[in-house]
Amino acid sequence: MALVERDIQLDEHKRLKHLLTLEGLKAHHLTEILDLAETFFDANGELRKVPLLRGKTIMNVFFEPSTRTRTTFEIAEKRLSADVVNLNIATSATKKGESLQDTLWNLQAMGADMFVIRHADSGAAHFFARQVAEGVHVLNAGDGRHAHPSQALLDMFTIRKHKGDIYDLKVAIVGDILHSRVARSQIQALSILGAREIRVIGPRTLMPSCPEALGVHVYHDMDAGLEDVDVVIMLRLQNERMSGARLPSEKEFFRLYGLTEQRLERAKPDAIVMHPGPINRGVEIDSAVADGPRSVILDQVTNGIAVRMAIMAVIFSNAARHPQEDAS
Amino acid sequence: MALVERDIQLDEHKRLKHLLTLEGLKAHHLTEILDLAETFFDANGELRKVPLLRGKTIMNVFFEPSTRTRTTFEIAEKRLSADVVNLNIATSATKKGESLQDTLWNLQAMGADMFVIRHADSGAAHFFARQVAEGVHVLNAGDGRHAHPSQALLDMFTIRKHKGDIYDLKVAIVGDILHSRVARSQIQALSILGAREIRVIGPRTLMPSCPEALGVHVYHDMDAGLEDVDVVIMLRLQNERMSGARLPSEKEFFRLYGLTEQRLERAKPDAIVMHPGPINRGVEIDSAVADGPRSVILDQVTNGIAVRMAIMAVIFSNAARHPQEDAS
Amino acid sequence: MALVERDIQLDEHKRLKHLLTLEGLKAHHLTEILDLAETFFDANGELRKVPLLRGKTIMNVFFEPSTRTRTTFEIAEKRLSADVVNLNIATSATKKGESLQDTLWNLQAMGADMFVIRHADSGAAHFFARQVAEGVHVLNAGDGRHAHPSQALLDMFTIRKHKGDIYDLKVAIVGDILHSRVARSQIQALSILGAREIRVIGPRTLMPSCPEALGVHVYHDMDAGLEDVDVVIMLRLQNERMSGARLPSEKEFFRLYGLTEQRLERAKPDAIVMHPGPINRGVEIDSAVADGPRSVILDQVTNGIAVRMAIMAVIFSNAARHPQEDAS
Repeated sequence: MALVERDIQLDEHKRLKHLLTLEGLKAHHLTEILDLAETFFDANGELRKVPLLRGKTIMNVFFEPSTRTRTTFEIAEKRLSADVVNLNIATSATKKGESLQDTLWNLQAMGADMFVIRHADSGAAHFFARQVAEGVHVLNAGDGRHAHPSQALLDMFTIRKHKGDIYDLKVAIVGDILHSRVARSQIQALSILGAREIRVIGPRTLMPSCPEALGVHVYHDMDAGLEDVDVVIMLRLQNERMSGARLPSEKEFFRLYGLTEQRLERAKPDAIVMHPGPINRGVEIDSAVADGPRSVILDQVTNGIAVRMAIMAVIFSNAARHPQEDAS
Repeated sequence: MALVERDIQLDEHKRLKHLLTLEGLKAHHLTEILDLAETFFDANGELRKVPLLRGKTIMNVFFEPSTRTRTTFEIAEKRLSADVVNLNIATSATKKGESLQDTLWNLQAMGADMFVIRHADSGAAHFFARQVAEGVHVLNAGDGRHAHPSQALLDMFTIRKHKGDIYDLKVAIVGDILHSRVARSQIQALSILGAREIRVIGPRTLMPSCPEALGVHVYHDMDAGLEDVDVVIMLRLQNERMSGARLPSEKEFFRLYGLTEQRLERAKPDAIVMHPGPINRGVEIDSAVADGPRSVILDQVTNGIAVRMAIMAVIFSNAARHPQEDAS
Repeated sequence: MALVERDIQLDEHKRLKHLLTLEGLKAHHLTEILDLAETFFDANGELRKVPLLRGKTIMNVFFEPSTRTRTTFEIAEKRLSADVVNLNIATSATKKGESLQDTLWNLQAMGADMFVIRHADSGAAHFFARQVAEGVHVLNAGDGRHAHPSQALLDMFTIRKHKGDIYDLKVAIVGDILHSRVARSQIQALSILGAREIRVIGPRTLMPSCPEALGVHVYHDMDAGLEDVDVVIMLRLQNERMSGARLPSEKEFFRLYGLTEQRLERAKPDAIVMHPGPINRGVEIDSAVADGPRSVILDQVTNGIAVRMAIMAVIFSNAARHPQEDAS
């Protein structure tokens, strides 16, 4: 199945219409969002409430439970003054045997202006985007192992804020690269923004079959991989995603790939530590690092609200612009 | 049990105070709602956001789960700028052994201005309406096998929009008439609005005992029943409602009463096809018909928002009027 | 474990910053809230909608399910025009093994201005209050057996409204004093406001070990305990809280401690009857009393909205005041 139809997420002026994946986007698509996100913070670093989406109805359609991501989207939507409808479909609608397509068509007929969708199947957000009417937008909040673009964008925002321009940086992503939609989207974002070097670190069993095709350097030894990097991104060990015995134990994983203060000394002295959360203390990251001075993990959460606000604002702003306005 | 107390849903000026059933209402009660619903669409056919119910608190009290109906009410309420509180009582309040009456009294004491109630027991909405204080309104979102008046009103709105005046039309309702609160309310609405002919089509086992008393023509043969009708309303086959073996199988049901393109040829060439949703593809309706040019099924969903807005707006507007205003 | 850190809920000017417990508060802290709550009722006794918390984000973080308390907080927050986010953590976030602290830190990073927290563990709200950043407020909506201060404040509001000044009154609290966070907070509130006499009535097995230390008079005989009181507060019999056979049966409990009209004759002729709800009819209270003329049980529910609005408004107002404003 070809998950990526080129340009389905762009309008005829190559402007963002949906956000399904970072694949195929240009640096200007990303920086427009990152720049706008900055403006949502006031002088005290608090998020403003703005009337940009007043009168718009946004539906958070979660086929997979997720308190964290759903809540950040809900807050972002309310900060934009949109009307928010939460649909936890896992437990209700499909019980009556309605297909994904019928669910979508019905929700659309209720007047949704945007769908924020999370689904266990890769490609679900693309499916929605192919089906929606003109003027309705789709935002992928995580689809199977495929993509989690808003997470990667908030990570880029966080890196840019702490380290400046990304093209100058060496970034290491550590953990279960194979099953991680977060890692896939981060690698794409870092590539698009021209990061100097992208490394992935983890055991062979948790690496995709052709990591080199992604333009990344592969390390199985963590100490070597962390050497001289500017940014360390730890991934969450998703036990529930792993089938069979790919790993000896959590303890063994921590011994080999857990981020400790000692290991972090291999990175640059001013390196930052990131994690998409929720963290497994003592499994992939030591508490001393997670709560330490180089951790920007909680800052990522805050930035996530601003970046999600910006994604939605950019998409609706693109839709409102008349084609003749930009004859570029 | 006498479910219908005459006039409990009307105030002393015979204006709508609650909406529990269509039984006992006059055509002007219905057309007032349908006319107002039209005004909520803007020139592009999109629903407006209006401040009519700003400061009002509406509680959606669902004792039966229903994503679809609950969501359309929630959206309608937010489009009217009301404050919305969702209560899924099935899973929570009655666990502590609180009676329906105590639940109602408590929610009312919290300051509800309107209850939208769904309950598995026929008469639950009437029970609420008899108990609420002056100035608190009740809207029946489906009670047992009894009534689903907002569904029937959105169906009338849809018919009127596509076919013009209802008094000129022949309408067929197909399926499980016996268990369907939707069918009961549709038959009442069509009678009140003076439809030329109302037919019900289905197996003997799924017909009420005295359908003639409802003023309908009964057909057990679908081809005969569809002959020359303007509107075909398919009902959802509610397997979960049926006790025992009233039907041989879904396949057999489809063979006898499933709506196919071929069968639809019996109806008028410009006949429309309706369904309250969610549809069972291949059980009561063929996908070619459901997704075909004569289907207005998704339009019903959109109209449902506007009609529910209108029901609530009419009720609150009636309550706000001073008695002396209309000395009729 | 010392649950009560003195002054953690007060700022440097001894003004309320969090509301965790009534222990340690002065009468003026309570009366400020009660006085403000009165202003939220309009001339018709209906609750106003006010813009006091526009732009503030309040998170209702419920680790224990509670439709009633959660809904009254939600309504209070919406009446104050705050943005409301409901989090039912029992079923979702901690499933992934996140600690209470990590949950708090993450929610805080999402931009919460106030947490309303309910938790099965005593001290959970204090834990939150110790961890939150400057400018973030915590409101205890019930923690284990420890405290339920907003319930006690709404009870004081209700007593004051019906009986005038509290210092002149004899108040009896009846039932399971041992397991009741409501009773603990009520006793503290009555003490602070100087009630003339506080009695607790119940079986020995449901009394705390040193009730006298609380400044209350203990009665095991209900008739004696009710003699001449102005206010009777019945507690809910929490079967689910009791471990082992502390009680012979519900029937036996009712015989000994159920409030009947006959028993109520022992109290003053104008005594009022209160209950935090939901009531167990025929277990701790007879329907004739619960629904009778001296019952103010439903008025408590309404007052609960106003008092919760006032608690939040006072806390945010304190935070907004500049220190130099009150040089007292």
